[in-house]
Amino acid sequence: MPPLESESDVDARVTASDLRDAWPVLDPPSRIEGFRYLTSSDAEEFFLGLAALDRSQLLLGLPPPEQRWWIRGLAPDDVADTIQQAPEEERSKLLALLDEPTRREVGTLLAYAQDEAGGLMNPRYARLRPDMGVDEAISYLRRQTREKVESIYYAYVLDADQKLVGVVSFRQLMMARGDARVRDVMTTEIVAVEDQMDQEAVSRKFAEADLMALPVVDADGRMKGIVTADDIVDVVREEATEDIQKIGGTEALDAPYLQVRLLEMLKKRGGWLVALFLGETLTASANGHFSTEIERGGWILSAFMPLIISTGGNSGSQASTLVIRAMALGEVRLRDWWRVVSREIVMGLALGTLLGLVGFSRIFLWQHLFSYPEHEKHPEWGHAGYYGPHYLVVAGSVALSVLLCAAWGTLAGSLLPFLLRLCRLDPASACAPLVATLVDVTGLVIYFTIASMILRGTLL
Amino acid sequence: MPPLESESDVDARVTASDLRDAWPVLDPPSRIEGFRYLTSSDAEEFFLGLAALDRSQLLLGLPPPEQRWWIRGLAPDDVADTIQQAPEEERSKLLALLDEPTRREVGTLLAYAQDEAGGLMNPRYARLRPDMGVDEAISYLRRQTREKVESIYYAYVLDADQKLVGVVSFRQLMMARGDARVRDVMTTEIVAVEDQMDQEAVSRKFAEADLMALPVVDADGRMKGIVTADDIVDVVREEATEDIQKIGGTEALDAPYLQVRLLEMLKKRGGWLVALFLGETLTASANGHFSTEIERGGWILSAFMPLIISTGGNSGSQASTLVIRAMALGEVRLRDWWRVVSREIVMGLALGTLLGLVGFSRIFLWQHLFSYPEHEKHPEWGHAGYYGPHYLVVAGSVALSVLLCAAWGTLAGSLLPFLLRLCRLDPASACAPLVATLVDVTGLVIYFTIASMILRGTLL
Repeated sequence: MPPLESESDVDARVTASDLRDAWPVLDPPSRIEGFRYLTSSDAEEFFLGLAALDRSQLLLGLPPPEQRWWIRGLAPDDVADTIQQAPEEERSKLLALLDEPTRREVGTLLAYAQDEAGGLMNPRYARLRPDMGVDEAISYLRRQTREKVESIYYAYVLDADQKLVGVVSFRQLMMARGDARVRDVMTTEIVAVEDQMDQEAVSRKFAEADLMALPVVDADGRMKGIVTADDIVDVVREEATEDIQKIGGTEALDAPYLQVRLLEMLKKRGGWLVALFLGETLTASANGHFSTEIERGGWILSAFMPLIISTGGNSGSQASTLVIRAMALGEVRLRDWWRVVSREIVMGLALGTLLGLVGFSRIFLWQHLFSYPEHEKHPEWGHAGYYGPHYLVVAGSVALSVLLCAAWGTLAGSLLPFLLRLCRLDPASACAPLVATLVDVTGLVIYFTIASMILRGTLL
Repeated sequence: MPPLESESDVDARVTASDLRDAWPVLDPPSRIEGFRYLTSSDAEEFFLGLAALDRSQLLLGLPPPEQRWWIRGLAPDDVADTIQQAPEEERSKLLALLDEPTRREVGTLLAYAQDEAGGLMNPRYARLRPDMGVDEAISYLRRQTREKVESIYYAYVLDADQKLVGVVSFRQLMMARGDARVRDVMTTEIVAVEDQMDQEAVSRKFAEADLMALPVVDADGRMKGIVTADDIVDVVREEATEDIQKIGGTEALDAPYLQVRLLEMLKKRGGWLVALFLGETLTASANGHFSTEIERGGWILSAFMPLIISTGGNSGSQASTLVIRAMALGEVRLRDWWRVVSREIVMGLALGTLLGLVGFSRIFLWQHLFSYPEHEKHPEWGHAGYYGPHYLVVAGSVALSVLLCAAWGTLAGSLLPFLLRLCRLDPASACAPLVATLVDVTGLVIYFTIASMILRGTLL
């Protein structure tokens, strides 16, 4: 029976999944102690399943003979990731634990950035020559398999220059007649990625191709390694996490939430909050500019300030979030900007009209439900409704401002990601809160300008 | 040479990647026309790479003989996804195109929800019996492979009751001695998922296990199918997209941005914006409640309203976004709430102090750089600085309000996802803008309460 989530064996044995659960709350010595409690097969499962950062920390806490044992059990790409996460000064020590051929492979991988195809790939893959017979190919693969080739789902067919000329799935080989040639069976329309391709682009290729592995080639078409779908699962999660954190107005944490130290966290969050705060101080400046209108308009004019600017902000972050995500998924490209922006203009006007109507109704309702709270200031108004005798023009100004702010927020929110992309900046970088700040400031200008036009002679 | 992004063949031939690029902007008839232009191998690659919705639309536009041809080329899980995306009334027609055994398989898959393990799995997998010899197993797999088993990366070992008792990778079989038994080679510590497990949990299992495929079993441990990593890449992208869209304050679009019709888009976005707008009207009510303070405090008091509430909003969405993502990744669970909230209290106070100091400095600076804009109203103040003679208490009230709002925003932002999860609601559902709205309203109350305490006798 598969040991699913079975709670049946209640003995004191620590399992891999127990340790995984407790991991985030353990300090480094307890982690090592916990790791030593595992049975050897559990320890292996646990070690292989660790994230590169955790794995490197655990490894550095073990004595050298154990380090050697564990690091040699890893595939070269996992070794490279683990070493990349270790402190600068420990890296050469870890490299020295490897046997010579693996050290060379890992060295090549370490030359690539961690977030490009070359940094993700495994340099060990099953390779065939085009003129091999199918039966020969199968037994050749069987020999390669003994030498730690990670994936034999696909075999890659290389010519004499190591250039990739075809791909053949194991299934195709198995189904072919034994005396056929590999070149007759292989597929020559190859989906490949270049070694310097960014991991986000690699993951898009995977999503499009729906394959279990993609070959990585250099600029000349020479085969360098393979990237497998299980690595891409991690990449996609990581990239989405970065985008989500940036959309939320933080720098990417680059580590699990509970493992980021407070000072580090303060830096990653404080930086953006201060930047946004400084941006928002422009609202105080805008209000200073309209001090006369605010003084004359009194509490009625001020009352709707937060409502109007937050409407702009909400519409703006909605639009920018949608566009940022569509860009990350490759659904929308730079050249699609006008299709997006024209849609968003229509959308913004429609949403603005809707919200403006809701705003108008809200004022109308309050007017007739409640009485004016500042009687003593305007005895001439008697007991006119909540917003005084000019409530219709007030409602009109508010509704129009809401409409314009929502439309402007939507437009700005959809345009800004394109502008950031055009300047070769990451559209996700705090775009949503940036839009909110921009729209808050301009929203106040819109509101007071409309109010001073419509309310002149009544409230102002 | 691999046809990477090679722009060399400039003939008029439409390639699969041309069509993929143009796809979003084509109307249904042009899509079918474009599809017909492809060479048969390009068409196959293109068809297999399509998302289920697009595939179902394309399929329904073809005449029945071609429908039959294309649908029979799909694996049963892809057939099920495609049929699920077709309109209700077309589904039985599409099912009727299948041969009897496939129809039965697809019927079983359609009984599962699309977002649970059973709905993702492929019911065809390589199966072995524990008492088979290794050589026998290899040739048996070779036969199964001819019958369209999708993945032979792993073979699953079932007992007479179809219960999963072991897993053996193809590589393990290849490396084993030919006369060994499958039961001697297989792994019995199996990572499996239950057929009703949610796809988000399935993708977490994949990220933990780093495997190319996971077996799906029912509650009794009977093998039902396999989920492969390439499907999980799609799941992870889809789930992240949903979360990002919800964090941005929209319902999940469930389709590529450019393919959602305007009315549908308006519904998904308008609903949340109206809800948030209604929430924000509470700010107008709060301001009405403090009308006396607003009237007395004049423009100076109103000037800082947007700054203070946006600070609370930004801190709140930052905290909630981080917590929501950590929850989705499984880094933080419900029982971790106090560890998170206690961290966020410290973080909120630190961030608040930082922002409060920035705010104080900003007022101090303006005071000494500019002169009071409303001379005629307060001739007794002379040419005192920008914020009048009481600027220090004003700066103090603003700084304290900023501190408290940032701390409160951070606390509320980190708590709300836990509350939503506790109520079995999705924490991502508009949590960030919800927090912003909540914090805006309470932020005003904080600000005016502090102002009326500190500024009584000076500005108020």
